Amino acid sequence: MKWAEFCRKFVEQVTHNHLRALFLKSNTTMSTTTTKTGHSFDRAILDSLLRRRLFYTPSFEIYGGERGLFDYGPPGCALQANIVDLWRKHFVLEEDMLEVDCTMLTPEPILKTSGHVDKFADWMCKDPKNGEIFRADHLVEQVLEARLKGNKEARGQTVEVDEAKEAKKKKKVKDTKAVKLDDAVVKEYEEILAQIDNFGGEELGQLIKKYDIKGPSTGAELDPPRAFNLMFSTTIGPSAGTPNGYLRPETAQGQFLNFQKLLEFNQQSMPFASASIGKSFRNEISPRSGLLRVREFLMAEIEHFVDPESGKKHERFEDVKDVKLVLLDRDTQLSGSTKTREVSIGEAVATKLVDNETLGYFLTRIQSFLLKIGVDRTKLRFRQHMANEMAHYAADCWDAELLTSYGWIECVGCADRSAYDLSVHAKKTGAPLCVRETRAEPLKIEEYQVDIEKKKFGPKFKKDAKTVEQAIEALTQDVREKLSLNLEKEGKIEVNVPGVGDGKVELEKDLIKIEKRTRIEHIREYTPNVIEPSFGIGRILYSMIEHVYWSRPGDEARGVLSFPPTIAPTKVLLVPLSNAPQFKPLVQKLTARLRRLAIANKIDDSSASIGKRYSRNDELGTPFGVTVDFQTLKDGSVTLRDRDTTTQVRASEDEIVAALKLLVDGEETWDDIKKRLPLFEGQDVD
Amino acid sequence: MKWAEFCRKFVEQVTHNHLRALFLKSNTTMSTTTTKTGHSFDRAILDSLLRRRLFYTPSFEIYGGERGLFDYGPPGCALQANIVDLWRKHFVLEEDMLEVDCTMLTPEPILKTSGHVDKFADWMCKDPKNGEIFRADHLVEQVLEARLKGNKEARGQTVEVDEAKEAKKKKKVKDTKAVKLDDAVVKEYEEILAQIDNFGGEELGQLIKKYDIKGPSTGAELDPPRAFNLMFSTTIGPSAGTPNGYLRPETAQGQFLNFQKLLEFNQQSMPFASASIGKSFRNEISPRSGLLRVREFLMAEIEHFVDPESGKKHERFEDVKDVKLVLLDRDTQLSGSTKTREVSIGEAVATKLVDNETLGYFLTRIQSFLLKIGVDRTKLRFRQHMANEMAHYAADCWDAELLTSYGWIECVGCADRSAYDLSVHAKKTGAPLCVRETRAEPLKIEEYQVDIEKKKFGPKFKKDAKTVEQAIEALTQDVREKLSLNLEKEGKIEVNVPGVGDGKVELEKDLIKIEKRTRIEHIREYTPNVIEPSFGIGRILYSMIEHVYWSRPGDEARGVLSFPPTIAPTKVLLVPLSNAPQFKPLVQKLTARLRRLAIANKIDDSSASIGKRYSRNDELGTPFGVTVDFQTLKDGSVTLRDRDTTTQVRASEDEIVAALKLLVDGEETWDDIKKRLPLFEGQDVD
Repeated sequence: MKWAEFCRKFVEQVTHNHLRALFLKSNTTMSTTTTKTGHSFDRAILDSLLRRRLFYTPSFEIYGGERGLFDYGPPGCALQANIVDLWRKHFVLEEDMLEVDCTMLTPEPILKTSGHVDKFADWMCKDPKNGEIFRADHLVEQVLEARLKGNKEARGQTVEVDEAKEAKKKKKVKDTKAVKLDDAVVKEYEEILAQIDNFGGEELGQLIKKYDIKGPSTGAELDPPRAFNLMFSTTIGPSAGTPNGYLRPETAQGQFLNFQKLLEFNQQSMPFASASIGKSFRNEISPRSGLLRVREFLMAEIEHFVDPESGKKHERFEDVKDVKLVLLDRDTQLSGSTKTREVSIGEAVATKLVDNETLGYFLTRIQSFLLKIGVDRTKLRFRQHMANEMAHYAADCWDAELLTSYGWIECVGCADRSAYDLSVHAKKTGAPLCVRETRAEPLKIEEYQVDIEKKKFGPKFKKDAKTVEQAIEALTQDVREKLSLNLEKEGKIEVNVPGVGDGKVELEKDLIKIEKRTRIEHIREYTPNVIEPSFGIGRILYSMIEHVYWSRPGDEARGVLSFPPTIAPTKVLLVPLSNAPQFKPLVQKLTARLRRLAIANKIDDSSASIGKRYSRNDELGTPFGVTVDFQTLKDGSVTLRDRDTTTQVRASEDEIVAALKLLVDGEETWDDIKKRLPLFEGQDVD
Repeated sequence: MKWAEFCRKFVEQVTHNHLRALFLKSNTTMSTTTTKTGHSFDRAILDSLLRRRLFYTPSFEIYGGERGLFDYGPPGCALQANIVDLWRKHFVLEEDMLEVDCTMLTPEPILKTSGHVDKFADWMCKDPKNGEIFRADHLVEQVLEARLKGNKEARGQTVEVDEAKEAKKKKKVKDTKAVKLDDAVVKEYEEILAQIDNFGGEELGQLIKKYDIKGPSTGAELDPPRAFNLMFSTTIGPSAGTPNGYLRPETAQGQFLNFQKLLEFNQQSMPFASASIGKSFRNEISPRSGLLRVREFLMAEIEHFVDPESGKKHERFEDVKDVKLVLLDRDTQLSGSTKTREVSIGEAVATKLVDNETLGYFLTRIQSFLLKIGVDRTKLRFRQHMANEMAHYAADCWDAELLTSYGWIECVGCADRSAYDLSVHAKKTGAPLCVRETRAEPLKIEEYQVDIEKKKFGPKFKKDAKTVEQAIEALTQDVREKLSLNLEKEGKIEVNVPGVGDGKVELEKDLIKIEKRTRIEHIREYTPNVIEPSFGIGRILYSMIEHVYWSRPGDEARGVLSFPPTIAPTKVLLVPLSNAPQFKPLVQKLTARLRRLAIANKIDDSSASIGKRYSRNDELGTPFGVTVDFQTLKDGSVTLRDRDTTTQVRASEDEIVAALKLLVDGEETWDDIKKRLPLFEGQDVD
């Protein structure tokens, strides 16, 4: 695109951009989050907790680390396993989906067909002086933002400080100088920032030139942006010299390639869904924001295959139609607002706000899953993709976004991918990735059919005969109708055949017949459409942790992670009052008993005070604690503590174990237990 | 190695080789397996079942497939998930291990240190004429075996046919010609085959030359063998032009790198174990044998860290000491036999047959895990590694091998990796991958200590001062003792300092003092040893399937997979007698009820006969079936069918659901149920 053309398009988009600018701004403002108890959220404290308690840790740290890669330690690993387990129950089991496990290694031709080889790329540019590499859009964004901030300072306006952004910027932007900018320039910068996601490589290059953006550490002129494919390439097998495959960027392709076998497994019955849980890979140019943008991540994806002519109805939609969702639709965003509204999914689908029942059904299922694992309902919204955000083939797309200290984060995408993927793979391989079903009533089709007098065709057109034939077969019904009339009227017709003679071929009545006839179709063949809910497990896990994190008044240095019992890494902490030997067999008996009930539990018999041991486990999110004390030696009773309220009850071991089973299975709440069993107020020694 | 030297070594090994030849032979003979009902096993029928029922399928089949990669379909995926789940309960939960989830992407330096970059390779050679590539040892093996077979034919001896081997050979060895060989040559061939695993690249090249082995399809002389590293390389990040990382070949390294953090998480308490479940990768030169040799596979690995001075005792060894294992030890193999013996692990450790308690403890835990998931006890043995099979640092190693139609397959390795990995990473990075503990009693150490008169040292040695100092610090106690005597006697000593002067340095009394003193050590610092049980989940899954597969007499075309209920993909099949509408609500109610109890179930309301529907599910390994029939409409009773015996009972829905819960949890067997509930013999309509 030429610069002039770019400017023209730019002006055309100004209205839209202003709205996006507004939107972006509101987005930033909202990132000052509060904890569930209404206190202001301090990310540094949470980060420190998560590392100290080994929820996760940068990979290969003793070798200096590798950006964008994280290892999960024991609590993070258990949390992740529990979330995956719940996901499998909530979706695969309850919805009777066909789970598959496909390989990550993927030969190149598959990803060429899917479009990833050509299009799954970001623009990067290089500082030729020191070899530093930047993601072009991020660089432009950060430099212009810094200049706008400098302008505000120069004008004596207050500057909102977003610490996360500041930290990022410090690395790339040398110093924010308090330089005043012209009003027009400010407006121009704001407009560019508003649509930073929409620029291609050439446009980014032009912006870098126009606004004199230089290498941050060298001041050198940057190389022009070039596309960097985000897939990791590798070589499969010993014969190829050069890379011939990739690590998958999504689990979806494996599911599409197995479509025919899955349909067969499902006894040819439609609709059905496949599902897959596994790692995918994305070679980020500059990974950042902890678990939110990493190079290797766990995904859980569903591909729900549906007949496009069914109106994408869903059998169980009736069951969910009154479920309310907080929606931020496309029109609202276009009107410059981020105001959400709470609508029942029944109404949303009836008014076509959400495209169809199947998409709507999954939005409610996504919501109930997220709420089950502990997401804060007030920090969840469904945002519809803008037209220019969606892949060209997508019919509609909604993201479940969670509010975190990094802003609203896309955690689940729910897209209608239409028939795109199955179609391209079928076209490339000739495999019948489609459904064939006997029509309940045979279909009568009236159409113009062409008969060719093959015996005369060959002699007349010789080596071109095939080409001419194909051109005739390809004629549309409209053209056929017209030609049929001409043929009748004039006894001959003229057909366009590119590449033969002068591109036109004359055909007489004895060579061709075109007639309107009725055809009966008994079998219907169609390519299913795909509704795809796609979950980024790491992003969900991190955002949820921000939602359940808080600290007790007066003890802000120590956090509490209020995981729901179902997903808590450890369900019960077992604490002997002291490490006196007579407690040991009791605790051992209890741990074995809970283990038999599949209740994950840990013993803490360290010499720290009970209070310290409990607060250590508050940080690990352990919902319940059982103490064995001198009273236990006398009457066999133990105490049970609730993490969130720190209240305790005391009862016989049998009663407490039964209560734990009900609590962990989610069949009773702490309130139920408190009503049933006597409260206990002694022993909480700090 | 020169040819002459090679021959000498060869002769030296003859005795050993003869034994190995015997061993190999017995190995092959045993591969004619039988099913659990004693019928001969037909792999082709099982393979067809597994593909038809979509347990697994070659990946990317519509694109022509990619060797060594398989996708798991719904039943295979559920089976795998259930095995992993059981593994996690059996090891991580019951043994209180620290589970971690580390990245697969691994920067090169880590795998350089671990030795994988240099040593994780196979020898391959290339046919220069058509570019075909062979694994050198496999090629030599197959050609010599074919010649031995041809010799037998020429001599009119019967030839044992192993179909799997034949199929493999057909691809690589043109035709087996009936050519008689000299007795000496036969012996030579047999000896080579007996130690085929021990040859390096140069030796394989010499064998190929000596025995005139040519390109199988071209007859061309082959290129010399070259090492092919089995890791998949890739490029992490946008800055590097060349590959700078690999996909991990094992999950172990991630666990070693996090050792310090895990120890800290475990409150500095030893011993402890970490564990990890995840994919690993191996770029096989020529993948084969279905799931047994693939390029991407699921592993579950445990690293148990233990104090080497503790005698590697295990706290719970007492609980398992009477467990019997079938062992094939090193000495027996060396004596030319494959005769196993059943020994209690207590005796095996006491007699030092198994090196230590911790290793022994894990062997029993591995066995109980394998038996739980359905492995046939008579097809399980533990084979000790020969000295030349183990990594040089390994102290002892036992493989759990399962007998399949491919022979005895290594499914779990259990090695004592000593302190090797932690030591090399600590040395490379300087990270303290060790344990520091306060000694119960401070240790008194008598030793020769050296005091250097630093003020005089500098002026005397100038730029060499540091080198001289380091050489002195490095002197052993023995040398120090000798020098101390010399210093006293002669007033001066001579110390070797390579690179300074003529390599010797003279030191007078005023420069150095060497005295015997007593030092008190309060802290003990040591590098833990590692016992590593390492599970190949795909191999276990496949071998177990062979063990539980059988067919009913008279219906050999249809198989039965007798998975234990715990790991069966689906636990219960729900079958309405017909698709009459009045059955539907009953079946729906039942499926929802089972789902709430987390019992995986499927409805089959297709129009096939009940017999057909049951036998379809026998192939899927579904252990129980519930039928809803006209009697159900009258009194609410349903029937329950047992897959293995096809016997049925009839009772109220409540009783049947309760029975299912007990059966699936493994708390009751079918025999228990049959005693409690009335048998039913009607309705089994074919």
